[in-house]
Amino acid sequence: MSYHKPEAKTVQDLKDLAHKLRIHSIVSTEASKSGHPTSCSSLAEIMSVLFFQQLRLNIKHPRDPSSDRFILSKGHAAPILYAAWAEAGLFPIEDLKNLRKIDSDLEGHPTPRLNFIDVGTGSLGQGVAVGAGMAYVGKNFDKADYRTYVVVGDGESAEGSVWESLHFAGHYELDNLCVIFDVNRLGQSEPTSLQHKLDVYRDRLEAFGFNALVVDGHDVDELCKAFHCAANTKNKPTAIIAKTFKGKDFPQVEDLDNWHGKPLGAKADTVIKHLQGLIVNPNVKLTPKKVGKTGLAPEVDISNVKLCTPPNYKLGDSIATRLAYGTALAKIGADNDRVIALDGDTKNSTFSDKLKNAFPERYIECFIAEQNLVGVAIGTACRRRTVAFVSTFATFFTRAFDQIRMGAISQTNVNFVGSHCGCSIGEDGPSQMGLEDVAMFRTIPGSTIFYPSDAVSTERAVELAANTKGVCFIRTSRPNTSVIYNNDEPFTIGRGKVVRQKPSDEVLFIGAGITLYEALAAAEQLEKECITARVIDPFTVKPLDVDLIVEHGKQCGGRIVVVEDHYQQGGLGEAVLSVLAEHRNFVVKHLYVPTVPRSGPPAVLIDMFGISARNIVTAAKAILKK
Amino acid sequence: MSYHKPEAKTVQDLKDLAHKLRIHSIVSTEASKSGHPTSCSSLAEIMSVLFFQQLRLNIKHPRDPSSDRFILSKGHAAPILYAAWAEAGLFPIEDLKNLRKIDSDLEGHPTPRLNFIDVGTGSLGQGVAVGAGMAYVGKNFDKADYRTYVVVGDGESAEGSVWESLHFAGHYELDNLCVIFDVNRLGQSEPTSLQHKLDVYRDRLEAFGFNALVVDGHDVDELCKAFHCAANTKNKPTAIIAKTFKGKDFPQVEDLDNWHGKPLGAKADTVIKHLQGLIVNPNVKLTPKKVGKTGLAPEVDISNVKLCTPPNYKLGDSIATRLAYGTALAKIGADNDRVIALDGDTKNSTFSDKLKNAFPERYIECFIAEQNLVGVAIGTACRRRTVAFVSTFATFFTRAFDQIRMGAISQTNVNFVGSHCGCSIGEDGPSQMGLEDVAMFRTIPGSTIFYPSDAVSTERAVELAANTKGVCFIRTSRPNTSVIYNNDEPFTIGRGKVVRQKPSDEVLFIGAGITLYEALAAAEQLEKECITARVIDPFTVKPLDVDLIVEHGKQCGGRIVVVEDHYQQGGLGEAVLSVLAEHRNFVVKHLYVPTVPRSGPPAVLIDMFGISARNIVTAAKAILKK
Repeated sequence: MSYHKPEAKTVQDLKDLAHKLRIHSIVSTEASKSGHPTSCSSLAEIMSVLFFQQLRLNIKHPRDPSSDRFILSKGHAAPILYAAWAEAGLFPIEDLKNLRKIDSDLEGHPTPRLNFIDVGTGSLGQGVAVGAGMAYVGKNFDKADYRTYVVVGDGESAEGSVWESLHFAGHYELDNLCVIFDVNRLGQSEPTSLQHKLDVYRDRLEAFGFNALVVDGHDVDELCKAFHCAANTKNKPTAIIAKTFKGKDFPQVEDLDNWHGKPLGAKADTVIKHLQGLIVNPNVKLTPKKVGKTGLAPEVDISNVKLCTPPNYKLGDSIATRLAYGTALAKIGADNDRVIALDGDTKNSTFSDKLKNAFPERYIECFIAEQNLVGVAIGTACRRRTVAFVSTFATFFTRAFDQIRMGAISQTNVNFVGSHCGCSIGEDGPSQMGLEDVAMFRTIPGSTIFYPSDAVSTERAVELAANTKGVCFIRTSRPNTSVIYNNDEPFTIGRGKVVRQKPSDEVLFIGAGITLYEALAAAEQLEKECITARVIDPFTVKPLDVDLIVEHGKQCGGRIVVVEDHYQQGGLGEAVLSVLAEHRNFVVKHLYVPTVPRSGPPAVLIDMFGISARNIVTAAKAILKK
Repeated sequence: MSYHKPEAKTVQDLKDLAHKLRIHSIVSTEASKSGHPTSCSSLAEIMSVLFFQQLRLNIKHPRDPSSDRFILSKGHAAPILYAAWAEAGLFPIEDLKNLRKIDSDLEGHPTPRLNFIDVGTGSLGQGVAVGAGMAYVGKNFDKADYRTYVVVGDGESAEGSVWESLHFAGHYELDNLCVIFDVNRLGQSEPTSLQHKLDVYRDRLEAFGFNALVVDGHDVDELCKAFHCAANTKNKPTAIIAKTFKGKDFPQVEDLDNWHGKPLGAKADTVIKHLQGLIVNPNVKLTPKKVGKTGLAPEVDISNVKLCTPPNYKLGDSIATRLAYGTALAKIGADNDRVIALDGDTKNSTFSDKLKNAFPERYIECFIAEQNLVGVAIGTACRRRTVAFVSTFATFFTRAFDQIRMGAISQTNVNFVGSHCGCSIGEDGPSQMGLEDVAMFRTIPGSTIFYPSDAVSTERAVELAANTKGVCFIRTSRPNTSVIYNNDEPFTIGRGKVVRQKPSDEVLFIGAGITLYEALAAAEQLEKECITARVIDPFTVKPLDVDLIVEHGKQCGGRIVVVEDHYQQGGLGEAVLSVLAEHRNFVVKHLYVPTVPRSGPPAVLIDMFGISARNIVTAAKAILKK
């Protein structure tokens, strides 16, 4: 499509509107006495052109599945984003003065508490991954016309996560994605390393598979043209590298150090007057484009996802929970065509390849780049377009802790599946062992943590996770474990199972995954010495079945041994201690991996690091004296 | 220096040695019945040339501060690294058969349990950052001749952390760094996204500031020439992009899918025979170059680091602990010229800029790239060359959790300082609040966690951290807090302080940072209602002062209220529960931030999210009934 320059009046209106957005950013940050007006100002023309010349929006329903997506990756420029939506008519301009107030959702950085925000930003360098996930869905699943725009700051473009995502977008030829780099030269504490070396940005972006356009980011004409070019470039995402100035058009502030994250204070009035003087039409009013009538996103229903067939095992079958995960994933994939899987080149270890084999088009290979892997997953799940399961080795999710943390702020429903937990993986050694993953996922507000021990409960965990709001984490194990539940055993979040009990029980064992079996073996051994032990499988570590543990713990004299293939801190053991905190008269012996393990056979390692049946027997005998 | 081709005999010897390394890799992975022989084979000529033509080593003392550094970032190729050191004469070839055995330090992935390994690898994409840190020290602090070599797999080059580090190395012109990309085309579960597109690698690396050389990675001549070029290129690091084949010279295995991470099994004998047939001189023996006599690294002493002057505050002074951190950092910097600071463009918030202002050459700006920030810090601290303090907002260390986790495996002594903890930061909102940082650092084996509450204790925390082995984390707060300790108050790791007590105390409060002051205020209020409360400042969360808590807890009727500006999981509260686990008759009320906070004034937030004096008073009254 050939390019038609916008009319002179439109150009002037967009310029005027940019200045109005600047003024709103100053006024709101003056009201809040904190915030980032200079980081807003560099963006003003970009926002004006995006919101009033480019984006196709549904103001009445900002999360319309067919409307264009916009992510402000440099979330600290929130005031100008809020100003743009106010100018677009979503809410009164006057509300902007509530910025950062305790009773306003116009927070310091954007969150989905606002109906026009898809994901929280503010931890830098995460927006492109999310945008790439949205664009992937738009191009490949929705096959719709909506486009995705992401504004990235130059400071945050130093984050490696950005380059993971740029590579992903280039590799998958996401031509419906446009990333705008606001190159305003200044970071928080000093100039960025690349300052205004726009040619370096261009060379890097071209090498990463982008249509890379360098523009004057304060020139409305150039911006319009660049966006047109982006929309008409096929098989490549576009990067608009905008040369801008921090605090643009703020006299005595523009392009100067030491103005990051500060309201203008005493200078505010002068600057606002100066900006007003630059406006030709103070009553300028523009309306965003509407969503078109064609190329709409299809309606999807991701509720009530089911295993297409129930678990089908025999008691005593020996099946790794990671394998049962793959089986269940393919089964829910057969039930709902919006179930997707993402992995980082470990699909033949996590068994996410079972979904790929059954439904190749619904598997997204993200290669060895876990931050982007998680960010893309969060993007795919936005606006309830998919039920996303993302898998890798449990410990490699530590690579994306910041993205997962932000996922909670973003109210994501992504399901995480971490395999190869604990020292029971054996010879590969400590770098591959998930020993802190439960601690990490437990800190995520609203998270649900499944730690299934056999194949039947794993399949049910997958089914439950698919239908559960918030972050879900399923911890799977590498070794085979016996099937201990019947195929029709019902499982519920927050409800554990007593898997062994006698009225005479004097101690309660709590274990999960391989340690559940060690606990059962320990109970077996103890019985030969006339000591009987009860054993609980918690099924979910968060929420934990408080009532079950308290009830059975009391029946066992308040003596509990918790054993887990995880470090001491933040795992199952401390979860148990937390639910017992306000109860007197419990005594808990906690067995855990006490230090960095090493390479060796799994059975030797779990004994050496203190979590075997033998160790449990010793602990039980010790606790019986208490 | 002009290039002289090695003699034909040398070239043939290096070729023969490459095949011997291949054979060792097969034999050792056959013995261990697991491992990655094909990932070794693609590297064989690179390792042969590096170890027997390039690296200047001290075989008797592999961690000689003046010897060249070598990092195998693709740690799963460990068998060929072990083979190279064995062929170099460090230990008997026969020992290679102990690979992955429980009583051998020749683990599945390299760790510093071996005296020739500086850092653990195996979580991919971390080697370049460490190498860049070493190279930075070599160029700028040691001003020595040693060079740093890092071998990166093509699969792992998808990790954004790699690109953060490449940018860092380019920006700081680390011409003593050479990164070798082993582009063997195949990942674990499918081909890499770039396969053999060597021109794309070259374009990217050039754009990231490297002297980028594409070579045939199996051609000894080409490799020798490339390393020579690297050593003679000034003001730019060099990247050698080696086109290789996975399983090179393994008939019916080479360049084929589905051979990742598998010993050759039934094929092993045939492949070994084939390789033996390629060897001209089966008795080939080469000796690595020795460390030169000039350009040596200076001797440094980083023991017994002290504050150059003691804390100098008045009781009641209002000082943020983050500010006291900066003050103390400059003071220990004055005491020892190997104290360095690294930050990710937050130095004017964390106050690490105080070191920069005092000793600009000892501050390393790492810009907004926290994974590289942490990796570089680990690199600088290797071989005890520096006392490294690395700072950013506490929550942004989540970005580098995987690097920190690997830091423990690497036995690093890096000190981490996280500012802006908790919802008490106020208006910036949840994305900037550290609410999971204590949980994260507690999981690190051997870590020490300081959570100082006033300026005096903060200065002592910094001094103690500088002299403490393992990962140290100091959690600092944004708001000002009162100085409550005298300047000569002694502080010890694992020893808390009772900051308020009466014989009549009925409940014990434990708080840290801002919540210590909330606890004190609560005690004040309760006293008006004739309830007295004891208050403990733990100083270190890990190790926690068990004896103090148990003793004073008992004196207060077993009633404890723990209050922290952190999420429930894995923080101070669960640390307290862990030390009380085996004691009956304690009841603990835990006050914590229960969900994602929001923007607002600090005082409003801490009350809204349940950790204010008012909340503590309520909790105390409730617990008195138990």
